[in-house]
Amino acid sequence: MATHGIVLDLIRTRRATTRSEIMRVTGLSRSTVAQRLERLLESRLICEADSGDSTGGRPAGHFCLNNAYGALLVVDAGATSMRLALTTLTLEIRLEREIAHAIEKGPDETLALIKQALAALLLEAGIEGGDVAGIAMGLPGPVEFETGRVVRPPIMTGWDDYPIVETLRQAYDCPVIIDNDVNLMALGEYRTARAQVQDLLYIKMGTGIGAGIIMEGRLQRGARGSAGDIGHLMIETDTPTQPAAPCRCGKRGCLEAYASGWSLVRTLREQGHMVDSAQAIVQLSKSGDAQAIEALRQSGKRLGLAASYAVSLLNPAVVVLGGTLIEGQDECVAAFRETLYQRSLPLATRDLKVEISHLGRRAGIMGATHLIIDHLLDPERIDRQLS
Amino acid sequence: MATHGIVLDLIRTRRATTRSEIMRVTGLSRSTVAQRLERLLESRLICEADSGDSTGGRPAGHFCLNNAYGALLVVDAGATSMRLALTTLTLEIRLEREIAHAIEKGPDETLALIKQALAALLLEAGIEGGDVAGIAMGLPGPVEFETGRVVRPPIMTGWDDYPIVETLRQAYDCPVIIDNDVNLMALGEYRTARAQVQDLLYIKMGTGIGAGIIMEGRLQRGARGSAGDIGHLMIETDTPTQPAAPCRCGKRGCLEAYASGWSLVRTLREQGHMVDSAQAIVQLSKSGDAQAIEALRQSGKRLGLAASYAVSLLNPAVVVLGGTLIEGQDECVAAFRETLYQRSLPLATRDLKVEISHLGRRAGIMGATHLIIDHLLDPERIDRQLS
Repeated sequence: MATHGIVLDLIRTRRATTRSEIMRVTGLSRSTVAQRLERLLESRLICEADSGDSTGGRPAGHFCLNNAYGALLVVDAGATSMRLALTTLTLEIRLEREIAHAIEKGPDETLALIKQALAALLLEAGIEGGDVAGIAMGLPGPVEFETGRVVRPPIMTGWDDYPIVETLRQAYDCPVIIDNDVNLMALGEYRTARAQVQDLLYIKMGTGIGAGIIMEGRLQRGARGSAGDIGHLMIETDTPTQPAAPCRCGKRGCLEAYASGWSLVRTLREQGHMVDSAQAIVQLSKSGDAQAIEALRQSGKRLGLAASYAVSLLNPAVVVLGGTLIEGQDECVAAFRETLYQRSLPLATRDLKVEISHLGRRAGIMGATHLIIDHLLDPERIDRQLS
Repeated sequence: MATHGIVLDLIRTRRATTRSEIMRVTGLSRSTVAQRLERLLESRLICEADSGDSTGGRPAGHFCLNNAYGALLVVDAGATSMRLALTTLTLEIRLEREIAHAIEKGPDETLALIKQALAALLLEAGIEGGDVAGIAMGLPGPVEFETGRVVRPPIMTGWDDYPIVETLRQAYDCPVIIDNDVNLMALGEYRTARAQVQDLLYIKMGTGIGAGIIMEGRLQRGARGSAGDIGHLMIETDTPTQPAAPCRCGKRGCLEAYASGWSLVRTLREQGHMVDSAQAIVQLSKSGDAQAIEALRQSGKRLGLAASYAVSLLNPAVVVLGGTLIEGQDECVAAFRETLYQRSLPLATRDLKVEISHLGRRAGIMGATHLIIDHLLDPERIDRQLS
């Protein structure tokens, strides 16, 4: 059996980082271990601690992942802004940019802008395009993970079935992975800050509302990549006197139509406020505006109801809240907690933690970094490459 | 590395069933493969096809799981009846019984009855208690899988934290696994009839309502074993004129309070019908009673709403419906489908299949059989035993 991948995984997870530890854990002979390490060193995936290269100060004789293996390019593209970063195998963020851009402008314009911004990051870091080891990008819509294509997004005009991977690979000859943006945030939070739990629900409240699901320590995407679509749970129906609020997906009564950034903009503009974004609503509420505060409270309450459904169905250990509407708005989170606990069975919530994102706006790029590293260092992939 | 477990797994899954196939797939030497097979034959976990023992007619030189390894005892205990069976490593149901019994009678009486019934099955089959290889049981409440204990069940008085595993192990010195009943039904359906999908949602509509979740081919239990609790999604709230219906969990407005067997009994009795069970309601509707048919239609509609939440969050490839209320009642299923499709985004439902359980009342015992076999043949467990 090829065991390069197993050896690399032991080094990556730090379960065994010396020749003798690797021999003990795997039961492989001294000569086999030596051969595996030699191939991994040749490939520049790992380095020895005394080589002076990204060793985190460990003594000689220890092996670790090699930051010089190649750059990772990661993108977290939201509805109205995107964050791009140059990261490494050891999860270091070397350079990072945020750009205001409406995803509605379509894939041609958006991907041209992304390519340009990524090239600028590489130029600044003095890295050649050929040294890019992998790219991962999150998009604010349902993504079919195997093909990296957006599938019938409720927003994102023009993106349906667009060849995103192929477009990025025109510029970079390396693996490119596309996923839903909130999936990447969930993964980032889980891996970076909460590896002690196995079941996590991440909810993003920004311009739109979405969720990412970790169960048994794995990101769950569902059959077609649309798992976690909490924003379009139909929480209201028409009554004899009042129709349910229209949603941008074309239906009525969705959670997003009552609780998202875009729907709060609609509500507050009807009340005469000149707000145009989730950020503006948060600023208005921080200035003490009673209508903005009440809008955020109502939003938290509706989200709490939808989250009670997710909590009953998924039984997570922790619910992590992120996104613009959450940042710094206690009213929204307080109303969320109150409704969630009131609407759930005690069993589902007695050990449940509700927490604010540790990573904030970096959750997406950290998740993207983990995702591409998982792909690049997958033991089976390594065995195919090195055997 | 110990590789008994890997060799057994190849034989179990039929990916490699001869010496030369096993050598080719694993890369192990002829002598190592011979030694692994010898130990597996000694342990009676496998047998050779020409030994005449449960070979399914395969030619000599092929290895397969050995039906004579030991009996499996499986129990599917529902709220008002239980099914017990004697099964084998090769998924054969050798004997099977159904017993009417109210789980509310508590753990002492229920487990005594179960022990008695299992002993009777063994006696009839001519099998000694010492030849029982494993036991798996499903219960109609939340189960903490690691400990096998029921955790704060909304029904099941007296079962909270009762030492079920310990009680059964007084009679049988073998692994005993306890799980939620609907989890086992989901696993049974998935493994027996639908292995071509990876994401399945099983919903049981009987006296109570529950769901079992398969994602990425694995049963998902959540952090505390209560994942899939669709029955207590709070789908209605008090209005100024009418309070939401009380649920047996102590809250109001739960799905179960509108759509379960017990709540339909309440509704139909208020309308003057002398029904006392889900079965009686189905019979009444089959006799053409308009109120019973309407009650089942309303029930399907409410379940469709709750299922639309589960489908948006989980994005399954297939929803499987089982339980007494589903059996033979087209009205209920038609109303379910209609509401589910009406309330969900097209993306979540365009490839979604809604199907009636293939296994019917055997789903639970088949799932229990798969669960205990997974445990007994777990590669790491086998390596610990045989190395």
